[in-house]
Amino acid sequence: MTETLSWLDQVRWNSDGLVPAIAQDAKTGRILMMAWMNREALETTAKLKQAVYFSRSRNKLWHKGETSHHVQNVQEIRLDCDEDVIVLMVEQIGGIACHTGRESCFYRVFNDGEWQVVEPVLKDPSEIY
Amino acid sequence: MTETLSWLDQVRWNSDGLVPAIAQDAKTGRILMMAWMNREALETTAKLKQAVYFSRSRNKLWHKGETSHHVQNVQEIRLDCDEDVIVLMVEQIGGIACHTGRESCFYRVFNDGEWQVVEPVLKDPSEIY
Repeated sequence: MTETLSWLDQVRWNSDGLVPAIAQDAKTGRILMMAWMNREALETTAKLKQAVYFSRSRNKLWHKGETSHHVQNVQEIRLDCDEDVIVLMVEQIGGIACHTGRESCFYRVFNDGEWQVVEPVLKDPSEIY
Repeated sequence: MTETLSWLDQVRWNSDGLVPAIAQDAKTGRILMMAWMNREALETTAKLKQAVYFSRSRNKLWHKGETSHHVQNVQEIRLDCDEDVIVLMVEQIGGIACHTGRESCFYRVFNDGEWQVVEPVLKDPSEIY
């Protein structure tokens, strides 16, 4: 690439070359998930206007929804004051961000000394993947 | 401590003993900031019902608002499906979460190949700290 990518240089990637990326539903405001991005993931996300993360377990780019078809259309990309965290405002296709078949990955609430599941499975994960 | 803290054991702390913690404004839904927590920070947050993070730069607990008085009253603590990210639903006292004097740390939006500041400074940081 010959163009100057100063906006990517401005991000403070950690020692593994990653930053956390938080996906928030643009309509409801729900925080759907947090995953990680490397430089290529962020650049691709901006280009496609769909969320592309970096899978640390599979050690490669992860186009969210590539198998489930629950892609995230990205309406806005934000950067924080320390330049080391990203927020994506997204339209969550299918209404399900979590691999458990729930809307959001944050379906457990701390209560009475334990993590309690407070949200339903909307679709059997075996039907998603 | 003699009691069993299984809810803290359930969190998948990273190799540095930390997890990311996202603070979301309970009223507006705005994502205010992301910081890090160690075990003691999360336990103290649950006990005080105020956000206590772990400062990686100062290497110690950081009771948010200890100098600015902009504390975060915690209404809810959530855990994600992978058990390695926390969301706090908070009441942000003073209406300012960011050390730059803005409501949220995510005040820059990617546009036309650059990060553009789209939110005002509500209070001079020198008056906060």
